Amino acid sequence: MSQADIGLIGLGVMGENLALNIADNGYKVAVYNRTADKVDSFLSGAGDLSDNVMGSADLAKFVSMLKRPRSVIIMVKAGGPVDSVIEQLKPLLEKGDVIIDAGNANYHDTVRRFAELDGTGIGFLGIGVSGGEEGARHGPSIMVGGSEDEWHNAEDVLNAIAAKFDGESCCAYLGTGGAGHFVKTIHNGIEYADMQMIAEIYGVMRDGLGMSPAECADVFREWNKGPLDSYLIEISSHVLDAVDEESGKPLLDIIVDQAGQKGTGRWSAIEALNLGVSATTIEGAVAARSISAMKDERIAGEKLYGAAPKGKAKLDLKTLEKALLAGKIAAYAQGFAVMAKASEENGWNLPLDQIAKIWRAGCIIRSRFLDTISQSFASGTAANLLTQPAFVEMMKDSNGALREVVAGCAMAELPTPCLSSALAYFDGYRQANGTTNLTQGQRDFFGAHGFKRYDKEGDFHHSWPSLIEK
Amino acid sequence: MSQADIGLIGLGVMGENLALNIADNGYKVAVYNRTADKVDSFLSGAGDLSDNVMGSADLAKFVSMLKRPRSVIIMVKAGGPVDSVIEQLKPLLEKGDVIIDAGNANYHDTVRRFAELDGTGIGFLGIGVSGGEEGARHGPSIMVGGSEDEWHNAEDVLNAIAAKFDGESCCAYLGTGGAGHFVKTIHNGIEYADMQMIAEIYGVMRDGLGMSPAECADVFREWNKGPLDSYLIEISSHVLDAVDEESGKPLLDIIVDQAGQKGTGRWSAIEALNLGVSATTIEGAVAARSISAMKDERIAGEKLYGAAPKGKAKLDLKTLEKALLAGKIAAYAQGFAVMAKASEENGWNLPLDQIAKIWRAGCIIRSRFLDTISQSFASGTAANLLTQPAFVEMMKDSNGALREVVAGCAMAELPTPCLSSALAYFDGYRQANGTTNLTQGQRDFFGAHGFKRYDKEGDFHHSWPSLIEK
Repeated sequence: MSQADIGLIGLGVMGENLALNIADNGYKVAVYNRTADKVDSFLSGAGDLSDNVMGSADLAKFVSMLKRPRSVIIMVKAGGPVDSVIEQLKPLLEKGDVIIDAGNANYHDTVRRFAELDGTGIGFLGIGVSGGEEGARHGPSIMVGGSEDEWHNAEDVLNAIAAKFDGESCCAYLGTGGAGHFVKTIHNGIEYADMQMIAEIYGVMRDGLGMSPAECADVFREWNKGPLDSYLIEISSHVLDAVDEESGKPLLDIIVDQAGQKGTGRWSAIEALNLGVSATTIEGAVAARSISAMKDERIAGEKLYGAAPKGKAKLDLKTLEKALLAGKIAAYAQGFAVMAKASEENGWNLPLDQIAKIWRAGCIIRSRFLDTISQSFASGTAANLLTQPAFVEMMKDSNGALREVVAGCAMAELPTPCLSSALAYFDGYRQANGTTNLTQGQRDFFGAHGFKRYDKEGDFHHSWPSLIEK
Repeated sequence: MSQADIGLIGLGVMGENLALNIADNGYKVAVYNRTADKVDSFLSGAGDLSDNVMGSADLAKFVSMLKRPRSVIIMVKAGGPVDSVIEQLKPLLEKGDVIIDAGNANYHDTVRRFAELDGTGIGFLGIGVSGGEEGARHGPSIMVGGSEDEWHNAEDVLNAIAAKFDGESCCAYLGTGGAGHFVKTIHNGIEYADMQMIAEIYGVMRDGLGMSPAECADVFREWNKGPLDSYLIEISSHVLDAVDEESGKPLLDIIVDQAGQKGTGRWSAIEALNLGVSATTIEGAVAARSISAMKDERIAGEKLYGAAPKGKAKLDLKTLEKALLAGKIAAYAQGFAVMAKASEENGWNLPLDQIAKIWRAGCIIRSRFLDTISQSFASGTAANLLTQPAFVEMMKDSNGALREVVAGCAMAELPTPCLSSALAYFDGYRQANGTTNLTQGQRDFFGAHGFKRYDKEGDFHHSWPSLIEK
């Protein structure tokens, strides 16, 4: 058998599916896993694709299977395991070979790994891969960071295995160093916000309107034909429709409302804070998962304060649909604003239109909506989605509905951490004269921090009275 | 002249005032500053306190002025300057001496400094000092972290210079390592939230009710006699009352609404995220300052979407007062929950009641309210303020007003990032059955993340349909 075009380390579900995807696209792939069993079962289960797969649980042997210059994709648990694999690989690779980390790395780790490999002659790419199991198998969205030379070496395979939208590959080179993993992090932050807003709207239907899961499913299915058309809306209808085989009950009524998180949502909120960019919808979504985890405290809280009344929301479905669209626009505006600022700070020159393009298919937030975002950024220069003509129109049409939902839920005692943050962001963003003049006055009062004046240039202090009792 | 009881490095406004405070309390203090001018003007301006102050712009000479074992307070800009001063001091100090960093350090830096000084025999304390200029001069709140031995060496001076509440010193030893600076960071995060909620309520009065600054000042003055009684409410009335001498206009109408930030609010939001604790009021406040800084974008935003209508809020002042109280309870609940979690993670055993106690006077968030918090934590065990009987009563009485304000502002197009986050937190906290069952269903659908069931133990997956078009 001839040598492999590319290697892949780590046969978890994602790694296995990515390897099959590569083989399926006519490339020969060699796989490695610490445990021989995994390698054996992968090879024996490859079926029609057997001709394109090979592998070994011996790392040196695995490396020897690869064409030169070698490309090795790592798909192992983010963090220490990635460093450990790189250390093991280093003595086996040569100048010109490339290691491609395809895991959910914190981009700071990616930056560090570039620095650590610098001077070894071994290249590195940090690529964000989104799409879950099915995406990995049939075409994920791939966000590439690193040097352009290394990108060109891996380009053919990565473009081939990526999802396609209208025939265009959902894989793009985004910038140097940690750019790919940074964009993936923000993708996941936006995903958190999108999912949380859908959950809040589901809450209105369930608790505020008294709808059954099946009824909610019908609504999401209907919405998936309109401006909300997206993978997350589509799967929401499937999740709401699912029936537990054992009990015959709607599955959703059996699933405990405690959401896990694996860190990328949190990272994206932290990056936004470090960059000084408002990402309150992402923060609200991360916080909602934290609160969800405190099930016992919430049960005790409901006992203390009483449950929210049922069926008290005076909202119609059309309003909910529009509110979700408005919230979504605000959340994506925040996410893209974070990327614009990070691009500036890191000298990445991130192509926002390309990012939206490669998110149109393959990834978890894929949607028709992202096509409009891509077109907007391609034709305009402004970094904030809220100023892009297409979104100005949508937002003008839908912000009223978002107001009604936030107001209605406040009165109906239904939590809307993400939708209310979206509205506050919008109303703050379009408020020429805000209220932090009071904040600046207070800061000058207690800390002599100074303030700027409308009527002249410079920094000013006021002479404040002393409050010390003599 | 005899030797000094304590030394102080850094004659900025805070350092200068802290030194005068020490001298005023009968302790002899030696000061050092890089520039001789600063030292000279400090010494010559000490007036009545001349007998208790000495100093030099020569570091060795400054150190020689101190009693053994020496205690040296550093009050310089946080970050690099602190490390630089420590490096310069090290060769001049001996075993048993103590360096006390009184600046606004990031607690991670404090932890690192403890590690770096470990084994040198030179002790270290990281103390958070709040109260602004006047606090530093007449009594700040002091949050101490480090080893108990070193605390006992510095205890007398620190207790003496701290603010007093009913005769009790607002200085306390809180825990090892970075505990003091961590608590100061969260103090500042709460301060951000408190200030932002006041600014939002001011916005309702100004834009929603059409009140003048002087009218708003009257209201805050009145509120300062009730449950909102606090330093921040008090200074709000002064800020709103202030008149610009040149123009004769209310000062507030001349101050540009762009709030600065020095990092502690952001740090506190990041720590909360890292700990997985919801601190959305702090995040909302940090984000509000970020948005405030984007003045040009906001002006453009208002042009695009039109200004919010004036005078459209149907809210009375009593409702605003209660809403602010409810929002404040939620914000403090979040801040204390962050500290409780950090205490657990770091093994600090933070005394939440003591923290509330030393915040009753001296610091920026000082208030009557904190006395109630202190009493609650002293008698109870629960970490969340929302479950403390005194606050349950207040919250039951006031959450309806918070709802009305959030709903009213949503409809009146006034941004309430912090108040709406406070309400969402409360409603999420007292919702036994939330909506992240949908989130978990989605996560299982696209990533096989699994979920828990109400009816049996373990982790489960559902067999979802494939959405791939064949």
